[in-house]
Amino acid sequence: MGDNESLKRLTEALKKAEVGAEEALRLLRNQATLDMGFARLDSARGVLRFFPEVVLARGKSAAEVVSIVDRLHRETGFAVASRVEAEHAKPLMDEFPRGEYHPRAMVFAVGKPEVERMEDEGSVGLVTAGTSDNRVAEEAGVILELLDVEVGRYYDVGVAGIHRLEKVLPELREAAVLVVCAGMDAALPSVVGGLFAGPLIAIPTSVGYGAAFGGVSALLSMLNSCSPGVCVTNIDNGVGAAAAAVRILRGTGTKR
Amino acid sequence: MGDNESLKRLTEALKKAEVGAEEALRLLRNQATLDMGFARLDSARGVLRFFPEVVLARGKSAAEVVSIVDRLHRETGFAVASRVEAEHAKPLMDEFPRGEYHPRAMVFAVGKPEVERMEDEGSVGLVTAGTSDNRVAEEAGVILELLDVEVGRYYDVGVAGIHRLEKVLPELREAAVLVVCAGMDAALPSVVGGLFAGPLIAIPTSVGYGAAFGGVSALLSMLNSCSPGVCVTNIDNGVGAAAAAVRILRGTGTKR
Amino acid sequence: MGDNESLKRLTEALKKAEVGAEEALRLLRNQATLDMGFARLDSARGVLRFFPEVVLARGKSAAEVVSIVDRLHRETGFAVASRVEAEHAKPLMDEFPRGEYHPRAMVFAVGKPEVERMEDEGSVGLVTAGTSDNRVAEEAGVILELLDVEVGRYYDVGVAGIHRLEKVLPELREAAVLVVCAGMDAALPSVVGGLFAGPLIAIPTSVGYGAAFGGVSALLSMLNSCSPGVCVTNIDNGVGAAAAAVRILRGTGTKR
Amino acid sequence: MGDNESLKRLTEALKKAEVGAEEALRLLRNQATLDMGFARLDSARGVLRFFPEVVLARGKSAAEVVSIVDRLHRETGFAVASRVEAEHAKPLMDEFPRGEYHPRAMVFAVGKPEVERMEDEGSVGLVTAGTSDNRVAEEAGVILELLDVEVGRYYDVGVAGIHRLEKVLPELREAAVLVVCAGMDAALPSVVGGLFAGPLIAIPTSVGYGAAFGGVSALLSMLNSCSPGVCVTNIDNGVGAAAAAVRILRGTGTKR
Amino acid sequence: MGDNESLKRLTEALKKAEVGAEEALRLLRNQATLDMGFARLDSARGVLRFFPEVVLARGKSAAEVVSIVDRLHRETGFAVASRVEAEHAKPLMDEFPRGEYHPRAMVFAVGKPEVERMEDEGSVGLVTAGTSDNRVAEEAGVILELLDVEVGRYYDVGVAGIHRLEKVLPELREAAVLVVCAGMDAALPSVVGGLFAGPLIAIPTSVGYGAAFGGVSALLSMLNSCSPGVCVTNIDNGVGAAAAAVRILRGTGTKR
Amino acid sequence: MGDNESLKRLTEALKKAEVGAEEALRLLRNQATLDMGFARLDSARGVLRFFPEVVLARGKSAAEVVSIVDRLHRETGFAVASRVEAEHAKPLMDEFPRGEYHPRAMVFAVGKPEVERMEDEGSVGLVTAGTSDNRVAEEAGVILELLDVEVGRYYDVGVAGIHRLEKVLPELREAAVLVVCAGMDAALPSVVGGLFAGPLIAIPTSVGYGAAFGGVSALLSMLNSCSPGVCVTNIDNGVGAAAAAVRILRGTGTKR
Amino acid sequence: MGDNESLKRLTEALKKAEVGAEEALRLLRNQATLDMGFARLDSARGVLRFFPEVVLARGKSAAEVVSIVDRLHRETGFAVASRVEAEHAKPLMDEFPRGEYHPRAMVFAVGKPEVERMEDEGSVGLVTAGTSDNRVAEEAGVILELLDVEVGRYYDVGVAGIHRLEKVLPELREAAVLVVCAGMDAALPSVVGGLFAGPLIAIPTSVGYGAAFGGVSALLSMLNSCSPGVCVTNIDNGVGAAAAAVRILRGTGTKR
Amino acid sequence: MGDNESLKRLTEALKKAEVGAEEALRLLRNQATLDMGFARLDSARGVLRFFPEVVLARGKSAAEVVSIVDRLHRETGFAVASRVEAEHAKPLMDEFPRGEYHPRAMVFAVGKPEVERMEDEGSVGLVTAGTSDNRVAEEAGVILELLDVEVGRYYDVGVAGIHRLEKVLPELREAAVLVVCAGMDAALPSVVGGLFAGPLIAIPTSVGYGAAFGGVSALLSMLNSCSPGVCVTNIDNGVGAAAAAVRILRGTGTKR
Repeated sequence: MGDNESLKRLTEALKKAEVGAEEALRLLRNQATLDMGFARLDSARGVLRFFPEVVLARGKSAAEVVSIVDRLHRETGFAVASRVEAEHAKPLMDEFPRGEYHPRAMVFAVGKPEVERMEDEGSVGLVTAGTSDNRVAEEAGVILELLDVEVGRYYDVGVAGIHRLEKVLPELREAAVLVVCAGMDAALPSVVGGLFAGPLIAIPTSVGYGAAFGGVSALLSMLNSCSPGVCVTNIDNGVGAAAAAVRILRGTGTKR
Repeated sequence: MGDNESLKRLTEALKKAEVGAEEALRLLRNQATLDMGFARLDSARGVLRFFPEVVLARGKSAAEVVSIVDRLHRETGFAVASRVEAEHAKPLMDEFPRGEYHPRAMVFAVGKPEVERMEDEGSVGLVTAGTSDNRVAEEAGVILELLDVEVGRYYDVGVAGIHRLEKVLPELREAAVLVVCAGMDAALPSVVGGLFAGPLIAIPTSVGYGAAFGGVSALLSMLNSCSPGVCVTNIDNGVGAAAAAVRILRGTGTKR
Repeated sequence: MGDNESLKRLTEALKKAEVGAEEALRLLRNQATLDMGFARLDSARGVLRFFPEVVLARGKSAAEVVSIVDRLHRETGFAVASRVEAEHAKPLMDEFPRGEYHPRAMVFAVGKPEVERMEDEGSVGLVTAGTSDNRVAEEAGVILELLDVEVGRYYDVGVAGIHRLEKVLPELREAAVLVVCAGMDAALPSVVGGLFAGPLIAIPTSVGYGAAFGGVSALLSMLNSCSPGVCVTNIDNGVGAAAAAVRILRGTGTKR
Repeated sequence: MGDNESLKRLTEALKKAEVGAEEALRLLRNQATLDMGFARLDSARGVLRFFPEVVLARGKSAAEVVSIVDRLHRETGFAVASRVEAEHAKPLMDEFPRGEYHPRAMVFAVGKPEVERMEDEGSVGLVTAGTSDNRVAEEAGVILELLDVEVGRYYDVGVAGIHRLEKVLPELREAAVLVVCAGMDAALPSVVGGLFAGPLIAIPTSVGYGAAFGGVSALLSMLNSCSPGVCVTNIDNGVGAAAAAVRILRGTGTKR
Repeated sequence: MGDNESLKRLTEALKKAEVGAEEALRLLRNQATLDMGFARLDSARGVLRFFPEVVLARGKSAAEVVSIVDRLHRETGFAVASRVEAEHAKPLMDEFPRGEYHPRAMVFAVGKPEVERMEDEGSVGLVTAGTSDNRVAEEAGVILELLDVEVGRYYDVGVAGIHRLEKVLPELREAAVLVVCAGMDAALPSVVGGLFAGPLIAIPTSVGYGAAFGGVSALLSMLNSCSPGVCVTNIDNGVGAAAAAVRILRGTGTKR
Repeated sequence: MGDNESLKRLTEALKKAEVGAEEALRLLRNQATLDMGFARLDSARGVLRFFPEVVLARGKSAAEVVSIVDRLHRETGFAVASRVEAEHAKPLMDEFPRGEYHPRAMVFAVGKPEVERMEDEGSVGLVTAGTSDNRVAEEAGVILELLDVEVGRYYDVGVAGIHRLEKVLPELREAAVLVVCAGMDAALPSVVGGLFAGPLIAIPTSVGYGAAFGGVSALLSMLNSCSPGVCVTNIDNGVGAAAAAVRILRGTGTKR
Repeated sequence: MGDNESLKRLTEALKKAEVGAEEALRLLRNQATLDMGFARLDSARGVLRFFPEVVLARGKSAAEVVSIVDRLHRETGFAVASRVEAEHAKPLMDEFPRGEYHPRAMVFAVGKPEVERMEDEGSVGLVTAGTSDNRVAEEAGVILELLDVEVGRYYDVGVAGIHRLEKVLPELREAAVLVVCAGMDAALPSVVGGLFAGPLIAIPTSVGYGAAFGGVSALLSMLNSCSPGVCVTNIDNGVGAAAAAVRILRGTGTKR
Repeated sequence: MGDNESLKRLTEALKKAEVGAEEALRLLRNQATLDMGFARLDSARGVLRFFPEVVLARGKSAAEVVSIVDRLHRETGFAVASRVEAEHAKPLMDEFPRGEYHPRAMVFAVGKPEVERMEDEGSVGLVTAGTSDNRVAEEAGVILELLDVEVGRYYDVGVAGIHRLEKVLPELREAAVLVVCAGMDAALPSVVGGLFAGPLIAIPTSVGYGAAFGGVSALLSMLNSCSPGVCVTNIDNGVGAAAAAVRILRGTGTKR
């Protein structure tokens, strides 16, 4: 916008010969470097088009989280934070009384993001192996719902009792994308991946103890899934899986 | 098919009261377990609907590979093998003169798979950081092309010389899905992920030495990408990335 | 039960020609998928036949543990939880005054499980290298005793003073199964494994410091035992070892 | 024997008062230490009672393997070696023309071991996730058959196509013990463990590449199995699993 | 000094023949070992010439830190401590009211170090990928400023939004040395390293979770940087990077 | 250049009003993106200004290496490859008879790079702990000499015999930069770092066995050096250390 | 004692022919197994001869530590505990007012152990790289002094300032055994090992941060020491080093 | 020697006042730095006094090994190399016909080292768990014998058959030092350490497969030995254990 304006003014000035060619060259080059760089254009078509910045509250003081949320909210009308502990939630709610805190998901949000829904946009199925994996699934689920994505929840259907998975299978198959959360042996994505033909994002969770190594066992298991095409995020990374699902639902070239 | 037949016959018999209710119950249950189990139905809607089994040649003798390829080819009219070394390629070509060997991709294929293309199906962009990553990208690329997926190649655009990436960016953005291959520091997916809003599948490659640890450095880097929604496959797993791309292009619920 | 009923009703309807063959086919197939799947049958013969679900209290709030224990207790007449800290134990005892808390084992149980004892069922010998390993052994021991398994305890017989092991050896040999708990160098299972011909389940414990790496040293040592046939569970996994012992005592095909 | 003789002579001497009490004490104590130590007795009731020493050929020269096999064969009438490469097999067959080489299992055996079968002894079911796991399963299988254990083989039933497992499930359940071999994500033991109530020994295999880390991924997955009571051996350790199965079938106290 | 004195006295004594040759030999040798060793000379030209000892407060009690700071301050007129928590800062400020505590950097300093600035000494640019990396950058920055090094700060310019980096690039290039702090995928040093020809010191930070492994992912990424000549310090090692920068600015041979 | 030309032509055209403002705007923006982007400018001031691209021969076929060297040589008049095995060296020498092969360094070079030497440029001291570390030092040394950097070699001065280091210390101290190569315990950089005030680049080498873990032990040791300001490269990374040294010698802002 | 009695009675009975030879044989064999096993004899010549059992307080409740110390003290007249936190120390001092708590060493002891000093027994030199390593050295030192071993302390002589080591070298060389404690790069044992010909026990300490990995870096460095014959204990294992020193001072065969 | 001479000459000159005090001071200081530095003195009392430099042949070409052996032999009259493969042995024997090659130990030696035996020097007992550990034990053994140390061999006495250990125990106990070699679970040193009061050096061997991880399992096991005072060397480090034994036998202060 402003760029266009200043460029227009420059070209007009050039036409009017108000500036010499050498000087124009210098101005143009600066213009190109400072204002017209591909980076700004990028951001218009980059990941931020469909997915907001998410503040990681963990490891930050409540004051820091409040301050970052405040800035984002004022700049964009929307702010969302993940891994929001009780100690963060109280001051956030005090500061942003219209905000919402989702304790199971440990997500806090205030305002409403700009959302571009696709026509005929499918839903995201959230699947967990055990109830301990639900917090991570909810982190993805709450964020997806904030972005107006339709979400289905299929929790506690781990393979040790495979009849539980069977029951939800027909519904699962209606989803456009599945997000499968599992810790320990993380066998669930491999089984689901053989029964579902669509995109499957696997989140290893830090559930388990001993040789679970804080999610490493699940991570390796998922990376080595015997079902082809299982994609993996970082351990406990509900935000990342939500972003990956949104990339699939809204970011494929033919739909944009 | 045969299932349908036998079920029809059973229901006819029931109607005709040729079998008693108890006996029918027993037969039905057996039928359910043996012939009608959800598993067979699954395979009709599972991952194999869109993506064929791929034989991993590495670690198998040439004779073993020939034999497995032969069986798959006879059963389904198509067979494809990955990590096909020169020692496998020769006997495969001798046995299947109509087959094709792609030495850069180390992929051998014979016959033609059944393919269901989507309407308005997008393309897959293959991106590599350096030329050493190309073999892995080609593994994905050749398999995708065998499945009639449109493929674009953007090789050797690593971030150490970021102008190379800039040049191909406009084209990259036209793809429906990107597959980004990088070893060592694997910084490329993070940069691309910030500039591209669509689904991005990252393949860590075993390129590098020393603390590259056979691809572990790249794997960790990708799992921790600062660009949200980057999904990761196993190290050097071109086949898996191809499967993930196909899941996205053809397997989302709203399109099936 | 209900399944049988609905199937009977369906076959009756078929006989009475109230539904056509095609419609019956559809109903049957649904029936098969939804109600008659092998999974339910499985559970009747699966691991749950002999071993109850054990709630892992660690990492859950007291309220969560109470709620899960309550549900299991009401559904099955029995509930058991492991890794029950003092903070969990108090509310559990308040809520279930008939329950029992075993502080050394950190196990809480309420109600009585259904148990199928085998004829001539042998006993399980619990062996520890040092007193710090006892908590893990007790976790296995208390759970086994809840299931009416006979248990012998042989604690603190580590190999640094091998005379301690010698003393209990004759008794040890009378057990049907041994569960050997050791941390640090985990040399005990190798020595016991050479002196005892029966099934030996080894539990690596997180006892030790420094290069013990929270049980990894013991785990590797056990996996590499020079005595053939030593089987290993996860670190500190008393529940798992109890389950493995029950599988051996009660689950072998010829005895069922 | 000689021990008995010398003890008898000593007691005779004592009776005849040829030695004094003090001197007898000293002699007896020596006797106890040198000849009557529990170790020799142990071996009579130790692991070797039911399971022979197995020579690991890998890493040894053909000459070394031949020499060890020869010594064992002459001492006990039986010798068996595992991981026997082609380079070992040829000289072994030349030296022991009555021996048998099992190339798939990479096992060589000559002679016949002494075997004590139990009454009503059950069978061992060998289960593999993929055909690449079969070598390891065969290592266990051939050795079990040498010891007159009944063996069932259920190969290539991995969870990516779960209908394959369903087909063999009824037979699987007849086994007294299952040995489940899987690499990569090693999801199979968790699924089988939920459907089978008996003892389940899981062997992680070094099948896979990249983040499979030569079997580590499978090992961790199995140690963290969500099905309780899954026991684990070292990577690729078919011999160990066979020994564990024999311990269960023949070594439990109530049957000995 | 004293050394020179005692040596002079000894040589005088030798001239005056007050001591014999043998005795002188012994004295000289002792003198050489005790007082004239190269080590003391070293310290005059060693690392301490340009960079002070920095007390690591973490893991020490407040009393210990106060005591060490006190000793250093009294000996050299200057003391500086890093990783100074609030619990250390209060007693330090009480004890040294003229000291300064930099809470963002967690650095405490009292007194003024002796500094030898070079002629035409360049500045150090501190670059961070995200705001969570700033504490580490500040640790380096505050220490550099205590040593009168000119510092520029370019924070939160990570590659997920590469336009942020572009904006500061011209200024960055004016620095003599860059210190780049990044966690997670640590892609920033590779991108910067391709755009800046000067010395680049990369600090991996422990920012991130899951497979970030407390900074290991970032560390490996930096060690494998695709930009040649990126040098790496320990995780979160702001002090070390400051020292490396000072070595470059002030310690190169041609400038000393 | 060409850019300048086309920009000049454009501004002239604008002045002459041969193109309209809108059209000019479009052209300028294209110009900015395609030709004037910061990336090309970058390369003019980026790492390639002082340090050439080095071809990693390891893992490439001789034909591939020859082809890449040929392209680089034709484009820039210079090409250099590292980790050049005997199998690569022969065809390279055949193809480029004017090239030079340095077998100890495993470096091949042909042509002459453009070099900008600084005034009063210091030298680089190469230091090794043992003779097995020399190959890595030579990789750095030969490349530095190709770039007209003055190099001193101080080999086999490891700390197990600290008198060896003492002998060369005075000379070492004359260097502007030290590159210290050590494997195993990598104690040398810590000792040297205490005696030398200038920039010190440490290369961990893969020398050693067992718990040396292919250079990991040395890498960790160096990252944790008790001498502040020791910078570390990847294992065996002579090229990287050479690049880091050149960055220091020629790339600091005040000298450019 | 009792053993001797019962053996005497048996030999008397044999002489008196009150039992037959066969019966005597059985009794003797039992006797041998139960009471006369080599283990008891062993303990008389085993490690406990020179080194007492040391209670590890860490991870135990104060009550547990008090109870174990009490039992040991009553049985042997002496008890010692390591890693005694303030929370343990208070109740221990209350219970054993004659005990001594060494807070720097975190060692508590009560009573006096039986000690066998060797003639001309040498001293143990304790050497640390930095003051943070002193706690571990003190753990060894206090225990050695409790056992009447002469101890010399040479603290804070790390290689970053090698003149500090030089000063104490002549004294160090008078020790019979050196115990060298170092964290981080653990370069000190390698330097000392080259200057001292006697036995050198290296303790890696968990001092450091980041890539120090809680002592792993120091451990690997010491295992790979370039000085031959450096022996290593577990991380922070002052007790183990004290035991190793006592084994050397008092346990060598020629001196016993 | 020469040092003494030149110092004497200097002191004479001083006495004769042939040089001034200042000049003498300068000469003396140089003398101290160049000729009298503690390093040279060190070597006279350092590790080389009792233990020769051992050439590691592995990873070196035959020509390199021959050349280093030749230099050492000419300088000191003795040379020894370890890990000498067949490819090294042939040229070594050709070059040094009086040399001796020990193929089991993979050690080559030529000439005779200067040896200082202690009065009443004890012997070293070499103990192995299995025959595969013997090569490492022999590496230590052959080198010790070259240095005139008395050696006893107790091979293949692993704990899986503990009666084997019992047999050799009385002899073992006569040794002054034990070197215990074990791979896999490395349980042997813990058992031996409880039965033997003298110094015990444990060598982890790379024997085993899968989770043995090339000796890491054994290494961790030994570092965590439940027998106090077990000291550990690097994996397979027979040379290091020999050096440690010699340090104990000949290097303790009271004996020198």
